Amino acid sequence: MEYNKNFNEVSFKLGSTRSVIREIFEYAKIRSEKIGKENVFDFSIGNPSVPAPENVKKKLIDIISNTDPVVLHGYSSAQGDLQVRQKIASYITSTYNAEMTADNIYMTCGAAASLTISLRALLNSGEEVITFAPYFTEYKVFVEASGGVLKIIPPNDDFSLDLKKFAETINENTKAVIINSPNNPSGAVYSAKTIEELSNILREKSELYDRHIFLITDEPYRELVYGNEEVPYITNYYDDSIVCYSFSKSLSLPGERIGYIAVSPKMKLNKEVYASICGAGRALGYVCAPVLFQRLIAGCLGETSDISIYAKNRDILYNALKNYGYECVKPSGAFYLFVKALEDDAKKFCETAKKYELLLVPGDDFGCHGYVRIAYCVSTEMIERSLPSFKKLAEEYRTKA
Amino acid sequence: MEYNKNFNEVSFKLGSTRSVIREIFEYAKIRSEKIGKENVFDFSIGNPSVPAPENVKKKLIDIISNTDPVVLHGYSSAQGDLQVRQKIASYITSTYNAEMTADNIYMTCGAAASLTISLRALLNSGEEVITFAPYFTEYKVFVEASGGVLKIIPPNDDFSLDLKKFAETINENTKAVIINSPNNPSGAVYSAKTIEELSNILREKSELYDRHIFLITDEPYRELVYGNEEVPYITNYYDDSIVCYSFSKSLSLPGERIGYIAVSPKMKLNKEVYASICGAGRALGYVCAPVLFQRLIAGCLGETSDISIYAKNRDILYNALKNYGYECVKPSGAFYLFVKALEDDAKKFCETAKKYELLLVPGDDFGCHGYVRIAYCVSTEMIERSLPSFKKLAEEYRTKA
Repeated sequence: MEYNKNFNEVSFKLGSTRSVIREIFEYAKIRSEKIGKENVFDFSIGNPSVPAPENVKKKLIDIISNTDPVVLHGYSSAQGDLQVRQKIASYITSTYNAEMTADNIYMTCGAAASLTISLRALLNSGEEVITFAPYFTEYKVFVEASGGVLKIIPPNDDFSLDLKKFAETINENTKAVIINSPNNPSGAVYSAKTIEELSNILREKSELYDRHIFLITDEPYRELVYGNEEVPYITNYYDDSIVCYSFSKSLSLPGERIGYIAVSPKMKLNKEVYASICGAGRALGYVCAPVLFQRLIAGCLGETSDISIYAKNRDILYNALKNYGYECVKPSGAFYLFVKALEDDAKKFCETAKKYELLLVPGDDFGCHGYVRIAYCVSTEMIERSLPSFKKLAEEYRTKA
Repeated sequence: MEYNKNFNEVSFKLGSTRSVIREIFEYAKIRSEKIGKENVFDFSIGNPSVPAPENVKKKLIDIISNTDPVVLHGYSSAQGDLQVRQKIASYITSTYNAEMTADNIYMTCGAAASLTISLRALLNSGEEVITFAPYFTEYKVFVEASGGVLKIIPPNDDFSLDLKKFAETINENTKAVIINSPNNPSGAVYSAKTIEELSNILREKSELYDRHIFLITDEPYRELVYGNEEVPYITNYYDDSIVCYSFSKSLSLPGERIGYIAVSPKMKLNKEVYASICGAGRALGYVCAPVLFQRLIAGCLGETSDISIYAKNRDILYNALKNYGYECVKPSGAFYLFVKALEDDAKKFCETAKKYELLLVPGDDFGCHGYVRIAYCVSTEMIERSLPSFKKLAEEYRTKA
């Protein structure tokens, strides 16, 4: 019997190759059993450490206690409950001045679903999607699952976008571009100027190739920004744009799978693209987004978990690492530090870090060689206790050099 | 600009063609505004009318009140929370004597997700999947979304499975078979004898073509059976089997999207198929099943909504229709009656039924010409009030004849 006749080869490979983060997770479990959980400094996972706002608990109990269960737990329409979509549209309109209506909003099971549905709505076999490194590793999986090809633009030395290379990469086969700001893993927030330049290039190339090139923004970290940073709202800059949003990080609800897709009302084909999104959701088996959490988030728009904790974590960790001699751009958003490894091979560096019980993720999977990702969505107290380890790690390399 | 360059043609068509049920839904809304909701007898939608058990409310509030929100709402592992999977496996083992372990269970966002993930795990482009009419319309969408081709076996006159035709249809390109028992729309429950015969054919053909042919059971209606009916547990009959389960109907939670896939522990390739399922879920953007409802159902295994109400509805409606001269096989499970239309063209018959404010679904979409589906998951009181309309409808046809 031939091997590949038994199941889908791509699915099998995706399911049987352990991700690096998964490997670290397993290592952490074993190590914790050996030396105690409190002595292992696991910076590998982007699971919010700050609890959901107290209001989430209150509202959930209120909704469950006071809604007829047949109505509460029944199907919503495939695109999501109309009132929920109206509330989200109003919120976007008033907050970002973006003129959304309910007909532009499609409720999803979180950002990953927002992306897979958007890509399946748009892509034909062999079409190209461009993204900028460092990038969230699953983009490649999602694009390929819809028959597309992912093209990656390496960053400039200062981690700004290489827009020249970007312009050169666009061709007659380019269907879409994915950006992620605030960025996982770099923490960078793209400025209005960057978004404008990027949009100008896309408009120029759309005209040149006489086709729509869609700009998809993956923004689960929109509200996780520090200081006076502002995250430009993409539909105000580029008409052929689609926002993939999730409440996973802003409300600390990653396991509940709730988010939405917002199709720019200024998009010429917005009705057709919205219809394709409905069709893609149907084909992928997303009957509707979980209804209890649809209702919940409609009452929590604009609220966030206490993100001042992440800001504090960032400051403590960033300042200490700089002090110990690490190189790193200060993140403006999200909850990751992208730090230059102290040797060329980030995987080896991560192995060395384990000696000090520091669990870091090599940047290679994010398309950036020689860097590591440190997720600081952990307790402030753990960060403080981990600092001597980071110091010793730097010293080991200083001694070697 | 060419039309099909702008988006994926299949997604667009799926999203822009209104389903028949959707059409009826819209008609019902308009008609209700005109003559009052209580005067429209909408039998079109399979949304449970019986509330979730009181225990669901109690348990949800208990879980939300007493669990650390970081733990409660955090990601579970992709295949689902281990404890939840262990509980489901124990439940299946003790209830059906099927020897499941947590490693055979993969939590999903409901039956549709269970099916799309299983199909993507198995299918290679162009491979065939067989199902039996009448069948749930979305099977075609799901199979084609994974690059497969759906082959449909028409039923015998008495709605039993045409196993001769089935055996003839299997070829070297057949990858899987989907069965749905209790059946939507016929309400049939396949007997142990039927399952045995079907399994024998599959074993014989697997050997003949030297390949695994997988049997997928879609069983959201497993617990909705009446009288002494038993639904055979498929893994006890056929080794290469996969159970796609959902709590939507049994616990009246269709909008919350919670179910699971159970891979037979007796399947030779069960580890490989499970890995492929994990990979397929990842590629489709299912990060994990909603965690609050994972925890909930782990505490409600074996419980159901008050299905005696569906049994009562079935008896009232079935007896009355027979009495008025309609032809119909008495359903053993689910909450649908599949009734012979009183003229050859079921669509025309449904139009005529509208004169009496009866909203029925033509069976053509389920692969059966000349039949209509009546969903009796509505209030008993509405059924009682609708009976004179069914009587008048029959009389109109008797007068014509």
